[in-house]
Amino acid sequence: MVSTDDHSNDAKELEVMLSRIQHIIVDYVQKGQEQLVPVVNYHTPEELYKLFDFNLPNKGVGLEGIFKTINSTLEYSVNSWNPRFLDKLYAGTNPIGVISELLLAVLNSNAHVFHVSPVLSLMEIEVTKAVGQLLNMGEKAGGILCPGGSASNLLAMITARNKLFPSIKTEGYFPRPFHPQSKYGKLKVFTSIHSHYSIDKAVQVLGLGLDNIVKVPVDHEGKMQVDILEKLIELSIQKDETPFFINATAGTTVLGAFDPIKDIAMIAKKYHCWLHVDGSWGGSVAFSDKVMKTTSWLEGSEHADTFTLNPHKLLGVPLQCSMLLTPHEGHLLFAKSNSSRADYLFHGNEYDIGAGTIGCGRRPDATKMFMAWKYYGKDGLGGRVDKALSLASQFTTMVRERKGFKLVQDPSPFLQICFWFVPPTIEKHVESLKGKEYSLCLSRITRHLHQQIREKGEFLVDHSPLEGIPDFFRVVINAPTLSLHRDLERLLDVIEEVNASVDWSELL
Amino acid sequence: MVSTDDHSNDAKELEVMLSRIQHIIVDYVQKGQEQLVPVVNYHTPEELYKLFDFNLPNKGVGLEGIFKTINSTLEYSVNSWNPRFLDKLYAGTNPIGVISELLLAVLNSNAHVFHVSPVLSLMEIEVTKAVGQLLNMGEKAGGILCPGGSASNLLAMITARNKLFPSIKTEGYFPRPFHPQSKYGKLKVFTSIHSHYSIDKAVQVLGLGLDNIVKVPVDHEGKMQVDILEKLIELSIQKDETPFFINATAGTTVLGAFDPIKDIAMIAKKYHCWLHVDGSWGGSVAFSDKVMKTTSWLEGSEHADTFTLNPHKLLGVPLQCSMLLTPHEGHLLFAKSNSSRADYLFHGNEYDIGAGTIGCGRRPDATKMFMAWKYYGKDGLGGRVDKALSLASQFTTMVRERKGFKLVQDPSPFLQICFWFVPPTIEKHVESLKGKEYSLCLSRITRHLHQQIREKGEFLVDHSPLEGIPDFFRVVINAPTLSLHRDLERLLDVIEEVNASVDWSELL
Repeated sequence: MVSTDDHSNDAKELEVMLSRIQHIIVDYVQKGQEQLVPVVNYHTPEELYKLFDFNLPNKGVGLEGIFKTINSTLEYSVNSWNPRFLDKLYAGTNPIGVISELLLAVLNSNAHVFHVSPVLSLMEIEVTKAVGQLLNMGEKAGGILCPGGSASNLLAMITARNKLFPSIKTEGYFPRPFHPQSKYGKLKVFTSIHSHYSIDKAVQVLGLGLDNIVKVPVDHEGKMQVDILEKLIELSIQKDETPFFINATAGTTVLGAFDPIKDIAMIAKKYHCWLHVDGSWGGSVAFSDKVMKTTSWLEGSEHADTFTLNPHKLLGVPLQCSMLLTPHEGHLLFAKSNSSRADYLFHGNEYDIGAGTIGCGRRPDATKMFMAWKYYGKDGLGGRVDKALSLASQFTTMVRERKGFKLVQDPSPFLQICFWFVPPTIEKHVESLKGKEYSLCLSRITRHLHQQIREKGEFLVDHSPLEGIPDFFRVVINAPTLSLHRDLERLLDVIEEVNASVDWSELL
Repeated sequence: MVSTDDHSNDAKELEVMLSRIQHIIVDYVQKGQEQLVPVVNYHTPEELYKLFDFNLPNKGVGLEGIFKTINSTLEYSVNSWNPRFLDKLYAGTNPIGVISELLLAVLNSNAHVFHVSPVLSLMEIEVTKAVGQLLNMGEKAGGILCPGGSASNLLAMITARNKLFPSIKTEGYFPRPFHPQSKYGKLKVFTSIHSHYSIDKAVQVLGLGLDNIVKVPVDHEGKMQVDILEKLIELSIQKDETPFFINATAGTTVLGAFDPIKDIAMIAKKYHCWLHVDGSWGGSVAFSDKVMKTTSWLEGSEHADTFTLNPHKLLGVPLQCSMLLTPHEGHLLFAKSNSSRADYLFHGNEYDIGAGTIGCGRRPDATKMFMAWKYYGKDGLGGRVDKALSLASQFTTMVRERKGFKLVQDPSPFLQICFWFVPPTIEKHVESLKGKEYSLCLSRITRHLHQQIREKGEFLVDHSPLEGIPDFFRVVINAPTLSLHRDLERLLDVIEEVNASVDWSELL
């Protein structure tokens, strides 16, 4: 069967393809989860160019050809079903995740206007409302799906600027010099030094300039220091600047710290700033009754003007699935502050969610979260969070008690376990170093071991730098199939094994 | 089987689900393509809330429950496999489109850094290079995938601003008043009055202000008037403003006009402006040798600094799939102008494509275009374009010759056939009206007929307003399964049938 532009038999063709790919997929999932294959068959780009056929032909390759490509793609890709993929804040997905994507693929729909995606638009309205309510945002809670956490954070900042300074939407920043009595000075954004770089990107996109982000210091746990935030805002006002946007992070990228939202909200209110919470990573704990009852992590979320939450991270929904939530009128907030006239498309329907985005056509990503919630229930999703937290705590203990390993933070604030490994054979030498030399040495050890582990492919973990301290391993606990002994203890063994084969005297 | 947080049997669970959904999907595709079901079972939001179970439970609904949701979703959604879905610039997808999405779902990968998506990153590099070369962009052609055409246009404008005015990236627009010797005045964007509203959105996002877009008039075919463009740029410079960005459209949203890229490129060069081409809709004609040889539509594309092309429109790749192409160093152009430091993520690898985006995590959408090209070949994709163009020409003739129907443009410039229907029974009355009254009357007729047709669900077509003329029907020719007589002639019949049931004396 070679298909070119004859589509009269698409249903049959799809049936043949689905039947054929099904066992390939099931086999791939099983081998990944049971670790019969490594996380990745590591190859450099140069090697991959030799191993994989990237040629794009004039004549189509047909069914046999395309299945060769599909099989090669799986063979050389990262198998994220393997719980030893510990590298990023997302993990593999799950059966209903795959089925939801398949459903979206078949529908090939577009969540910009209601009349082309009626069910999917209402799913988006309902599921953002329900998640907003988990954050105690009340009856008017709602939101909109964006293509990733950075996009949600960007839309939050645009919305804040357009709501607080509507003239900028039409006039831009330019009239200011011509109107010295202008109501605003340099617009300033406040965020912690540990917040995600998407805040920086948003600031530069908006034309505010990276110099106009004020990075607030964090305490020893990585949380924003609220007293210093206030001082920095005061200082900014004294310089005739205009603080307008505060970003609090719920679950920082590297350490997993939760900024104290409730205290920050009071500052935001006092200085008339927009409060955004970047809960891309940590926001999903709202599904856990246990976390909501026993921690203060999300306390004050209801005071956020906007809140980013990525179900594609901690909840296992396939990437991309990111929500921007708000207690102010749901998605209509965004339509009111961001819409451009597009009469050919939007005919004034409040169910046309796309009006609030900075785009036009849009994947109906909310469907995947809707389906995950239906299938697992709030309790199932919350259970996933609890399980990860329990495992993180056990693994922290394991690292603490193991010779040669040193926790960056103890206890680990959330689901990232960050640690150094100091090779016992050179421990004395390392510990004798001071300041920058110590830091450089430990960073070099981390990076060298990390590179070796990545090339083995048995595990994927990341290494992270953080201002002022040596590079360290960051292990993200997320996948519900992850096991303390089979996987995490084995990781520590692998680090030791790799270390045993290194001649440090040559490298340091 | 009720799944909560037990994932030990995911492979088996996925197998059960895939087996079960397969016949549902194949049946859905077949019924759509063979038109055994309407395009949509039309319901208002209020009705849908009664018909569909949007409840999000604490306990998961399990396998039976989720298949009930899946079946209801399909039942009340738009079936875009039905070729009578003529409403938007995208159509249904095709078998390899579905399979590609399924592959991406299983991989659940992220195209930000090479080491988590090795094959998919190289696919992106290769397929953007290959498409860039179809646009004659040469050896250094390449690009990056963005979450939709609007996002590509936005990234183009950000890149232009950052490259031309690097100080804005760090300082923002704010230092200007303090540096009266600043090298730039108000930044101005030039685009035709028929260009897509995403240009407006990008301007407001960037803080340039909607007042700083200069809308260039179009000729009778809807193409930008280049002599007026030049005059407007001259005028702007005389006012000490700084024209910096010209957007040319290859295939406008409503009429399908192609701005003369080559002539506009000369203006861009003369005035040191960035030339962006929004070929979201029309750029895909690059796959057709016939179009490239016999038309001047894409002539001059190689002079574009950036070029948006959406395979999810004319090529049937599932939504979202949009590329931003450039002849300048491929994706590295974007990394250099837009990256923020994110040391924890990007470790200085030129294959880490995400550095050039304004986001972080990203769907590997390029894979879908790569697979479509492999499967159908360039010739297959080009054949699809040729087929649509031939059908558009035949349908234009059909509309021209049919009593009561009036083409908005004759011949149709591209794949949108735009027309009015003047009911024969009131033709004399309508034609006797002048100016605004005539326009209002014809708009009312279009909108009323359109609403009735939409509610029937046999067809989905759009109606469009356009400055200065009455609202008209816009029929988009795209799906390769569309038939002149079975579908398009039937549409004209339906318009007449609906008209026959309307008592215009009550409505006008």
